Amino acid sequence: MLRLMDSRAPLSPSPRTRLNRLRERARTDREELYAVLDAGLVCHLGVVVGGTDGTPVVLPTSYGRVGDTLYLHGSVANRSICAAAGKPVCVTVTHLDGVVLARSVFHHSVNYRSAVIFGTARLVTDDPERLRGLRAIVDQLAPGQWDNARPPNRKELAATAVLALPLAEASVKVRSGPPVDDPDDHALSAWAGVLPVRMVFGEPAADPALAPGIAVPPHVRSRVPQPA
Amino acid sequence: MLRLMDSRAPLSPSPRTRLNRLRERARTDREELYAVLDAGLVCHLGVVVGGTDGTPVVLPTSYGRVGDTLYLHGSVANRSICAAAGKPVCVTVTHLDGVVLARSVFHHSVNYRSAVIFGTARLVTDDPERLRGLRAIVDQLAPGQWDNARPPNRKELAATAVLALPLAEASVKVRSGPPVDDPDDHALSAWAGVLPVRMVFGEPAADPALAPGIAVPPHVRSRVPQPA
Repeated sequence: MLRLMDSRAPLSPSPRTRLNRLRERARTDREELYAVLDAGLVCHLGVVVGGTDGTPVVLPTSYGRVGDTLYLHGSVANRSICAAAGKPVCVTVTHLDGVVLARSVFHHSVNYRSAVIFGTARLVTDDPERLRGLRAIVDQLAPGQWDNARPPNRKELAATAVLALPLAEASVKVRSGPPVDDPDDHALSAWAGVLPVRMVFGEPAADPALAPGIAVPPHVRSRVPQPA
Repeated sequence: MLRLMDSRAPLSPSPRTRLNRLRERARTDREELYAVLDAGLVCHLGVVVGGTDGTPVVLPTSYGRVGDTLYLHGSVANRSICAAAGKPVCVTVTHLDGVVLARSVFHHSVNYRSAVIFGTARLVTDDPERLRGLRAIVDQLAPGQWDNARPPNRKELAATAVLALPLAEASVKVRSGPPVDDPDDHALSAWAGVLPVRMVFGEPAADPALAPGIAVPPHVRSRVPQPA
């Protein structure tokens, strides 16, 4: 189910209904986009390096969202991150939800939610925005963590490149539910269904150098499932 | 820890030692690459679409490995998959192992294993190789599943594009272990450590249309962790 942010919704006989439907569709699309992005930990950043016969490079990296802006960061020494500034990029976030096992090889699939964002990455030079972006990235990895850690100093900020990508052109794709086999194949004796997949957090492992008596804070502890 | 398959190993005073070290390094690198690839379910495929000012597109897709060849597939109607044929592509497989929480914002990170493969994707036209590639893709998603399902018929094969990518130019990157904070920050009272992340399989959900009496087969059942 591909949904485009530019709302290529079907035509409607009434212009007013159509406008309402477009508005509703755009709102739904944007909320779905936020949901996929906000549930993720890392994205895959695609950027073209080299000249006109450039090669695509796809790198896993962390990210954060503030409203309709996605922030990425990297060391100023990271050539791929720096190469992305001012260039068209693609950022993809994927959640794998299940392996779809069909009666026929052809109808095997995966259940997933993905967001694909296109745009031109802007190098953020304004310090307050750089800090907002970095906070979003850290809090995406661990909500509440920014306020728990020492803020970056001037030297650390100088070593960090922050990129901003507007959430203006994006698509969200979702597959869910059981396999869709050909009717003729339902007579086969093969098992068919979904093997669910999910990401879970484990028991936090303290830094061996941690001073005694410092407990795992609630914003980290609360992410770990408790035994029933 | 970036490892390049073309072995830019440090020089050694003895040519023979050096050759052995290069061989050993190449073997280790290749085994690490196989390990990262074989543990994955989906990859992210990067391809440039459009002309000389082309845009990168990053799509999640399933894959399979046969020796030193990676196979991808898609519908012949899928423009991105078909655009990849004969073009430079980048395929990245990432496993997220943990969120690394440091005492300073700057040293936050993630523990992960990733493989990044560069090369030119070849459209596979030979039917036996197409079948080998498709078998690898299905068995990557669910080991043993190919022999459990109906093989593709002529019409299904005609609707499927299979791409091959040689595992010739690749890098494997791994981060593991606790955060690395500045010594001065060890006096801070912030908790530091790793929040482990892992992917788990859940209880298989049968297709509602499944005929009664067909049990979850052992090759699927065995992937689900049993309660202790």
